[in-house]
Amino acid sequence: MTEILPSYVEGEWWTPASAARATEVRDASTGEVVARVSTDGLDLGAALDHARTVGQASLGELTFHQRAVRLKQLALALTERKAELYALSSRTGATTQDSWVDIDGGIGVLFAYSSKGRRELPNAKVYVDGGVENLSKDGSFLGRHIYTRLRGVAVQINAFNFPVWGALEKFAPAFLAGVPTLVKPATPTGYLAEAMVRVMVESGLLPAGSLQLVSGSVPDLFDELRLGDLVAFTGSASTAEQLRAHECVQTGGVRFTSETDSINASVLGTDAVAGTPEFDAYIKQLVAEMTTKAGQKCTAIRRAIVPTAAVDDVIAAVRERLSARVVLGDPRAEGVTMGPLASTAQREEVLRQVGRLQAGGGELVIGTTDAPIVRHVDGSERPAPDGAFVAPMLLRFPDAQSPAVNEIEAFGPVSSIIGYGTLDEASALVARGGGSLVTSVATHDPEVAVALATGMAAYNGRVLFLDRDDARSSTGHGSPLPNLVHGGPGRAGGGEELGGIRAVLHHMQRTAVQGSPAMMTALTGVWHQGAAARPYEQDGGVHPFRKSLAELHVGDQVRSGSRTVTLDDIETFAAFTGDTFYAHMDETAASANPFFPGRVAHGYLLVSWAAGLFVDPAPGPVLANSGLENLRFVTPVSPGDDIRVELTAKQITPRETDEYGEVRWDAVLKNQHDDIVATYDVLTLVAKEQAAA
Amino acid sequence: MTEILPSYVEGEWWTPASAARATEVRDASTGEVVARVSTDGLDLGAALDHARTVGQASLGELTFHQRAVRLKQLALALTERKAELYALSSRTGATTQDSWVDIDGGIGVLFAYSSKGRRELPNAKVYVDGGVENLSKDGSFLGRHIYTRLRGVAVQINAFNFPVWGALEKFAPAFLAGVPTLVKPATPTGYLAEAMVRVMVESGLLPAGSLQLVSGSVPDLFDELRLGDLVAFTGSASTAEQLRAHECVQTGGVRFTSETDSINASVLGTDAVAGTPEFDAYIKQLVAEMTTKAGQKCTAIRRAIVPTAAVDDVIAAVRERLSARVVLGDPRAEGVTMGPLASTAQREEVLRQVGRLQAGGGELVIGTTDAPIVRHVDGSERPAPDGAFVAPMLLRFPDAQSPAVNEIEAFGPVSSIIGYGTLDEASALVARGGGSLVTSVATHDPEVAVALATGMAAYNGRVLFLDRDDARSSTGHGSPLPNLVHGGPGRAGGGEELGGIRAVLHHMQRTAVQGSPAMMTALTGVWHQGAAARPYEQDGGVHPFRKSLAELHVGDQVRSGSRTVTLDDIETFAAFTGDTFYAHMDETAASANPFFPGRVAHGYLLVSWAAGLFVDPAPGPVLANSGLENLRFVTPVSPGDDIRVELTAKQITPRETDEYGEVRWDAVLKNQHDDIVATYDVLTLVAKEQAAA
Repeated sequence: MTEILPSYVEGEWWTPASAARATEVRDASTGEVVARVSTDGLDLGAALDHARTVGQASLGELTFHQRAVRLKQLALALTERKAELYALSSRTGATTQDSWVDIDGGIGVLFAYSSKGRRELPNAKVYVDGGVENLSKDGSFLGRHIYTRLRGVAVQINAFNFPVWGALEKFAPAFLAGVPTLVKPATPTGYLAEAMVRVMVESGLLPAGSLQLVSGSVPDLFDELRLGDLVAFTGSASTAEQLRAHECVQTGGVRFTSETDSINASVLGTDAVAGTPEFDAYIKQLVAEMTTKAGQKCTAIRRAIVPTAAVDDVIAAVRERLSARVVLGDPRAEGVTMGPLASTAQREEVLRQVGRLQAGGGELVIGTTDAPIVRHVDGSERPAPDGAFVAPMLLRFPDAQSPAVNEIEAFGPVSSIIGYGTLDEASALVARGGGSLVTSVATHDPEVAVALATGMAAYNGRVLFLDRDDARSSTGHGSPLPNLVHGGPGRAGGGEELGGIRAVLHHMQRTAVQGSPAMMTALTGVWHQGAAARPYEQDGGVHPFRKSLAELHVGDQVRSGSRTVTLDDIETFAAFTGDTFYAHMDETAASANPFFPGRVAHGYLLVSWAAGLFVDPAPGPVLANSGLENLRFVTPVSPGDDIRVELTAKQITPRETDEYGEVRWDAVLKNQHDDIVATYDVLTLVAKEQAAA
Repeated sequence: MTEILPSYVEGEWWTPASAARATEVRDASTGEVVARVSTDGLDLGAALDHARTVGQASLGELTFHQRAVRLKQLALALTERKAELYALSSRTGATTQDSWVDIDGGIGVLFAYSSKGRRELPNAKVYVDGGVENLSKDGSFLGRHIYTRLRGVAVQINAFNFPVWGALEKFAPAFLAGVPTLVKPATPTGYLAEAMVRVMVESGLLPAGSLQLVSGSVPDLFDELRLGDLVAFTGSASTAEQLRAHECVQTGGVRFTSETDSINASVLGTDAVAGTPEFDAYIKQLVAEMTTKAGQKCTAIRRAIVPTAAVDDVIAAVRERLSARVVLGDPRAEGVTMGPLASTAQREEVLRQVGRLQAGGGELVIGTTDAPIVRHVDGSERPAPDGAFVAPMLLRFPDAQSPAVNEIEAFGPVSSIIGYGTLDEASALVARGGGSLVTSVATHDPEVAVALATGMAAYNGRVLFLDRDDARSSTGHGSPLPNLVHGGPGRAGGGEELGGIRAVLHHMQRTAVQGSPAMMTALTGVWHQGAAARPYEQDGGVHPFRKSLAELHVGDQVRSGSRTVTLDDIETFAAFTGDTFYAHMDETAASANPFFPGRVAHGYLLVSWAAGLFVDPAPGPVLANSGLENLRFVTPVSPGDDIRVELTAKQITPRETDEYGEVRWDAVLKNQHDDIVATYDVLTLVAKEQAAA
């Protein structure tokens, strides 16, 4: 294990010729050397070009759904070999629970993106954003917005605390977008990231050039970046500041986001006094955030903001829970619930920041800065001078406005407590963090929740509300989720590495496109009103419902005959459905309604008849009507009016792992005057191939 | 008119005590002094604080729709007094047509945002983004994304070329978001912006603190900005670079976007040879972009990228059209179609950049850098040494890869022409601009369009496709529209001042919120599944359809009785509608279908029956069923199954200017086993008040 940790670049594993400049990486609990790291001689420019050429080409051959399926397969490959990762993870100081968050949490991100990608993206390469903008009176000139992938490389610079999850949360949306990744893990835990990449490479599932790994430092990286590349940085605010200042970001158009160690807050609502379920949930969450990963989480609670009268109650409750629940020690020892920091350098840094907090007015009310007694693998309880252990600490600041409490972070098991008077004051204190990843609020009072959200949501990437209804099901203050934005304004860095499809789109460029309906159809793959359509009678005579996905094309159309609506039809339908709403049944009342000329047909009658007009009833490739969207009734239909329907294949979405897919049909109902009666989309499930005879 | 131009700050018109440091501003055609400008002694910090306190408070009292209505009223107020603005506009060098783009175009932005705000935003203060994320198995913990307004001031620094439109395109989305504006026009044409603000102030329509104007330079502005503020800059890339480097942007969390003078391209497709309608449309557009506003448009075409074989044809056609159509002179003179630049300083700058283009390999093939003969107000044709006139110029670059042609901009009536071989080369040349606001493509071949879009859309904020189908209706390469993104990546600055609701959201913070269904309901104003609902029989006994908007609350619910579906019902419905699809009619074929146990009820039957189950038929506040959304059929219904419906008021949207509004109802159909059969939203129009008896 004291070999030099390899990098994976240009499709090959690479190690430096010489170990002369290598850095040693040590076990967090014992100080034993785990690995050495060096990039001496690595051709970074060639690696980036490999991504921009080979990686872009191989990913560009796949649709969103095909990439999504690949993510699921990668998740399964990692699941199969996760024991290897857990074994290494304990060397970073992680307890089994901490490792679960990192390893199973990271694999979970791949599953989540795989699922979201197939549910929320088309099975195509272009993503269409928002509706059609009609830019001319005659419908000949339209506008839309499309997203196409950035044509460079996604450089991902990760923090030491979550070597697996932190890498996968960025890789997944980049991969789904079709942008190749170059990942640079943090040196102290890079050996775990390397093991993860090795599993992914050995799975054979990665398209060429789609993932490269650089083990070790890359000081000249930003000199090699250019428009089309993007950087997702996780780490300290000060490093982010340095990187962001580089010319390639400032004027070169390289997209840079960071997700940094913000001064997150947790607010105890005015209603959540001791004895309420919210108070208990608040304490439980606060202690969990102090001790999970030994507090080495960008999302950990740094400031407990509580009603002034509740400060003492909170301190007492935290003290009690810490002493009852937390056992500090080597994660491989029996019963340990909190491990060391990732390195002795981190230990020194945390103690230094605690000193600054104390100098800024903080009184240490729980814990100590002395070297703690910890449990060793042999079961003994004694100091561990080579391990990176620190005790959980809580500081009280009598002055809530102290710059120290609102600006200084100790990136370890360290929180501070301050008191507030009014809810406006609480919001203002949250905002004093200068922009946060997350704030949580314990309250069961919707008015308290709304007042705080109005005052401080805009200073946060995420706000979690904790009460008796969700205390058991809450995923917790400190857990970013693959379906919610992760990142925040200001000090939090403006990142959006996570956040469902939003994070995928972050790897793409939104472009307004303008042109004729035919061009919009070509550019998006989605048929647009005004583009040529092919009524089936004039195009081979095969009804579109008789075509499999392999045979159907957007623009294939049914133009039905017309059918006259009678008063008798309306009354029959009312009697059958029970829908005797006055607009259908009472001429006087209907005439008095601002929208109707008199009795009108039910909207549901019209769409039901439309189905009768467009359907081809015999068994065939169309399997089911799965839904309907965006129905708008435009012109009322009176007895004596005719209706007819134009049904046009609009979007075709084969499913990668089923024998069928979805066809979205554009439906327009018109009356005898060619007025539009209703517009909607019909959703159907259609077989990929004709059934064998 | 040679008074010092006032600023409008803290609710009052302000002028400096002394004119000692004032700058003179001159008529573009004659050189006559129009105004003097100075901010000597202005308390900028107080103005910003006025926005952050008074402006935030007054705008915060209004909903999106109320702000939208105000925008329309402001547009009408400007329309009424636009003659005053046109008179001043001609002094900036603008022809009547140029002024129309600026003044009527600007007013049009207000109308467009007013309309979009009411159609696409809720009548509320919070915007909900995306769907519900269910974060727990039991539905007790949900996630959503909300946008709340930034709690600072929108600082808008505008360019000299469009003093009205340029200001209103930024003001409108900021105002709609609820963020107060401080606008800083460019000095050379600031007198027109001042006149516009004066009309808006005098209309009495502006909420206190919602709009302030600074006439003159503000070198220390950025020192006063902080988290929650945002800056929208339009102007040169170099100034943008300076401003972006300020600490408040780099680490202070101030949101900065710029929209800069990018090196936009117009590509002639390989199919668009001389003689085609696309060639003619291309030439017409190119000449228009060279001469409108004397080429002083961030969106103007700087690079004509044409098939190498077509270069000579294009030059000849441009020469011909320029000489036939363009008359250079004082905009107040009869027959003039192209005015001067905005100032003699701009004239010198343009000539300097033309010199750099020539030095970089450009041959001047049309036009001259000599002082042109121009038409004066008296009808005479002679030089105008005090006017800022330059002739339209086209340069040919034999080397398309020349850095000069792809990087240097002359911000006047100046374009360059380069040749390409393959479509990939054309895309690569577009990308060489380093990120553009817009590229246009003349082609009638969808394959050419798709190839170019795939290659270069990601380097553009907007791409316009021009062909015979839209040449007459196209709004043109150079026209940003209020419903499409305006801005672009890289050199174009990353701005999003325009772009429909996207630009509004740019003034807000997206925050993930997590909590119980009840909390999500409180935070969004939209009822969530899982939150308490009030079945009307247990809550006063008044059916929700009998409640006006004033009486209805989200959560008001109808829980219907159940109704059994029989085979006879299915056959009756099939006969009535004509929908005899085999899944309803043929037991053997239906059983062979992968989704159905046998014959099943029509989806349309189910939703029609549901209406019969939930409707209250007598005349009342519910006026019409206007539509239906997001219908999904989940569980098939077989003969013998029961169905019932739960209909719950989900979102209430009163219309500001009508006597009714929209109610969105959550509909869930269930069977006798409590399985969900279908889910959808029903849209209705409901009166604000009960009709008088």
